[in-house]
Amino acid sequence: MLEKIDLSKKMKKAEYKEEINKLSVKLGELQRICQSAKIPVMIVFEGLDASGKGVQIGKLIQALDPRGFEVFAVKKETEEEKYYPYMKRFWTKIPEHGKVSIFDTSWYRKVLGERFENQMSADEVARAYHVIQSFEKELTDDRMVIIKLFLYIDKREQRKRFEKLADSKETKWRVTGDDWRRNEEYDAYLKVNEEMLAKTDTDFAPWTIVEATDKRYAAVKIYKTVIHALETAVKKQPEPDETAPELDEKKTESVLNKADLSLAYTKEEYEKKKKKLQKELTRLHGELYRRRIPMILGFEGWDAGGKGGAIKRLTQALDPRGYVVIPTAAPNDWEKKHHYLWRFWVKMPKKGHITIFDRTWYGRVMVERIEGFCTKREWKRAYKEMNEMEEQLSDSGAIVMKFWMQIDKDEQERRFKERQANPEKQWKITDEDWRNREKWDLYERAVEEMLVKTSTPSAPWIIVEGNNKYYARIKVLETVVDAIQKRIAQEKEK
Amino acid sequence: MLEKIDLSKKMKKAEYKEEINKLSVKLGELQRICQSAKIPVMIVFEGLDASGKGVQIGKLIQALDPRGFEVFAVKKETEEEKYYPYMKRFWTKIPEHGKVSIFDTSWYRKVLGERFENQMSADEVARAYHVIQSFEKELTDDRMVIIKLFLYIDKREQRKRFEKLADSKETKWRVTGDDWRRNEEYDAYLKVNEEMLAKTDTDFAPWTIVEATDKRYAAVKIYKTVIHALETAVKKQPEPDETAPELDEKKTESVLNKADLSLAYTKEEYEKKKKKLQKELTRLHGELYRRRIPMILGFEGWDAGGKGGAIKRLTQALDPRGYVVIPTAAPNDWEKKHHYLWRFWVKMPKKGHITIFDRTWYGRVMVERIEGFCTKREWKRAYKEMNEMEEQLSDSGAIVMKFWMQIDKDEQERRFKERQANPEKQWKITDEDWRNREKWDLYERAVEEMLVKTSTPSAPWIIVEGNNKYYARIKVLETVVDAIQKRIAQEKEK
Repeated sequence: MLEKIDLSKKMKKAEYKEEINKLSVKLGELQRICQSAKIPVMIVFEGLDASGKGVQIGKLIQALDPRGFEVFAVKKETEEEKYYPYMKRFWTKIPEHGKVSIFDTSWYRKVLGERFENQMSADEVARAYHVIQSFEKELTDDRMVIIKLFLYIDKREQRKRFEKLADSKETKWRVTGDDWRRNEEYDAYLKVNEEMLAKTDTDFAPWTIVEATDKRYAAVKIYKTVIHALETAVKKQPEPDETAPELDEKKTESVLNKADLSLAYTKEEYEKKKKKLQKELTRLHGELYRRRIPMILGFEGWDAGGKGGAIKRLTQALDPRGYVVIPTAAPNDWEKKHHYLWRFWVKMPKKGHITIFDRTWYGRVMVERIEGFCTKREWKRAYKEMNEMEEQLSDSGAIVMKFWMQIDKDEQERRFKERQANPEKQWKITDEDWRNREKWDLYERAVEEMLVKTSTPSAPWIIVEGNNKYYARIKVLETVVDAIQKRIAQEKEK
Repeated sequence: MLEKIDLSKKMKKAEYKEEINKLSVKLGELQRICQSAKIPVMIVFEGLDASGKGVQIGKLIQALDPRGFEVFAVKKETEEEKYYPYMKRFWTKIPEHGKVSIFDTSWYRKVLGERFENQMSADEVARAYHVIQSFEKELTDDRMVIIKLFLYIDKREQRKRFEKLADSKETKWRVTGDDWRRNEEYDAYLKVNEEMLAKTDTDFAPWTIVEATDKRYAAVKIYKTVIHALETAVKKQPEPDETAPELDEKKTESVLNKADLSLAYTKEEYEKKKKKLQKELTRLHGELYRRRIPMILGFEGWDAGGKGGAIKRLTQALDPRGYVVIPTAAPNDWEKKHHYLWRFWVKMPKKGHITIFDRTWYGRVMVERIEGFCTKREWKRAYKEMNEMEEQLSDSGAIVMKFWMQIDKDEQERRFKERQANPEKQWKITDEDWRNREKWDLYERAVEEMLVKTSTPSAPWIIVEGNNKYYARIKVLETVVDAIQKRIAQEKEK
């Protein structure tokens, strides 16, 4: 496909100057409009080596208010970056609403490189492009404008540019052995790029091919592409949507109702089991660290369902240098300026570490759904988005598990009253807890739907029978210990 | 000094359980009080290898609400961390108001290690402790509670613990060659620690020595120390302070008045000089990158003084992958929850990169002083704090320069009116600009004091005569080019 493109396009200096000045004013204006309309923008520069990505970024940002953009030069992953799930690098760099992130190479870099070096199986390639597509879809669904530019020059032009760089003492260091090799194997490398363009040219995040032989021609085309994309985004009317929880209060036979809440341990049984399990967990935590296995544990459940107590019995056995508990409350102002998954992605653990979320991203399909904090389309697509995220985490080597702490309505009332009566625990109970309790049946329906749609082999839900705290805590400990043991046994088999 | 300490102290299990339960309730309560009083807390664990820092942190956090603390395990600097000024690692980890950061070894680690290995000159040691002391002073002046714990065991106990770890297949990896060597050279290592304790035991951030042979005894002592420190902080009445800008409006002979605002270039002179200087700057930017020299440029000046235009002429010549412009506005909610220097520290560039601040930390002694956004004591001590920060940046190898864009009052009026008349520039001018203008004379006095107190050899102020934009832009370009050239010449001499 690329060979059909006319790389001889040129533009005269005088014409260029006039044009670019007009476009600059226009672009500056559009940036301000996007800022006040809170539209976030990502501009991706990919393309051949020496096609002038740096130069073109330099030209583009001249028109932009520096208060509104950031440039990210994406290089080969550092050792530190390798310790995290791959897409975390990019989730941490998405702009807040109204801002612009510019990428000098991007999430495409790794797959291009490894594909060219034949380090990926067909399955892995398919998976990598699927992950990229999900990433771009999730963001554009959240009003992100993604502009992807592919800068294209031919083999001779590339060689000429390398030679020019290599000729000067000051720029020689910029041309590496890899560069020369990719020029020699230009056709093979181009094919890898063509595959990328074909697989990821979507209606929500399309590619624009920029003929980059002539820098002036390229700059004008880039300006025009960005301006066009922003104009379209600004004009676009949001499709009508509503905040409808779509739930009836009618009780049905359900997963939650099947939980046997009579399960219980005596204090003695509890103490004995706890001691043994915690000792084993301490040992296993060291193993996770040594084997560099990350672990992500999510806790959800009814208010006063025993999340805190269960988490405490876990952390008592963990080395504080190797885990962190992330309590999730309503998003703060800064978090609200981003995609709802952003604040969780940035907290995902490094290899060998454990992150425990006390409440999770599932708030999207529970409280946000029921209270109308997000729209119907938003919570409807969230199941898939959350499954995607967890699958990516699991693919990156993490053990991912989610616990639902189940109690019945009477037990909740008992615990609320107990908290109110105890001066040391009063702070734990608020009017909001009582208000939420009134919506018990609505929540129950939402939880049911959530459990069904998001319990996956790579990130299962575990329903914890919680009326008896002892039983619940032991079940959590046992489940975690068991999961780590299984994983380690698998690793040993390899 | 340490040899005088009684390491045989012990506590029975039953007594411990009773005591620690009481202390836990107390500590949990105090954490909540500190949270609502917005008091930030840092707890530092230092001490000998195998003295049980991890275990003790694990015990301490059992009493804390996980929503309110974070544990940082400080290891040897990674390659990535080495690219930044040393203290940036810790500035980025200070807790927001009301939260707790716990450090498993800390900013003391590096100096202890290098001191023991005889890698530091006496001067460097003195400088390192000075930097640490400034850091702790600045934070405690901002209401931070810093609790420093030194866990102490004797040589035999340490050896015993290493042997126990080394005996088990699962913990063997935790004992390194360095550990054994430090045990052999226990006395020498202890001396280094004693020096540290002596040099950094201040009234605002004192050390507590924890006899750590018996874990129960140590845990109780740590709980009590933390509780005592928090109780003291909660009870402490803030000393009376006021928001007094302390400025009279009377004009005096001044640095600013001496600036020759008639200096000017014609458009032709400007274009010619600009072209030459930008070409050289592009080359020098590559040199900075290769030599890994970071550069920090701060811009301050009157509204409409030409900061934006000057910055633009710089960045036109820079590779966008190697610089970033940080626009500084009033701090947002998140920034307000931290020390005022925090938001600048987190933006400090990596080696080989340039950070340009469009307005800077000097807002503290200008707008914050004049408008009463900070207290008299706060702006008074800010000069020293800012000098300290810049000196640390300079010591870490950065070129640090600050530009004051000077215009006169008539020129400002002319520019304001021009902006209002031009539809493309109207957005640049607000009512606030006109209001600030009314306080011109007050600002002038504050700026004078700032220039005098904070122009240092390691971070000079450059006054840019700005009535003629051409002249101003060339002066900024020339000064930057000149500074880089000088630095590179120095490096070549080495």
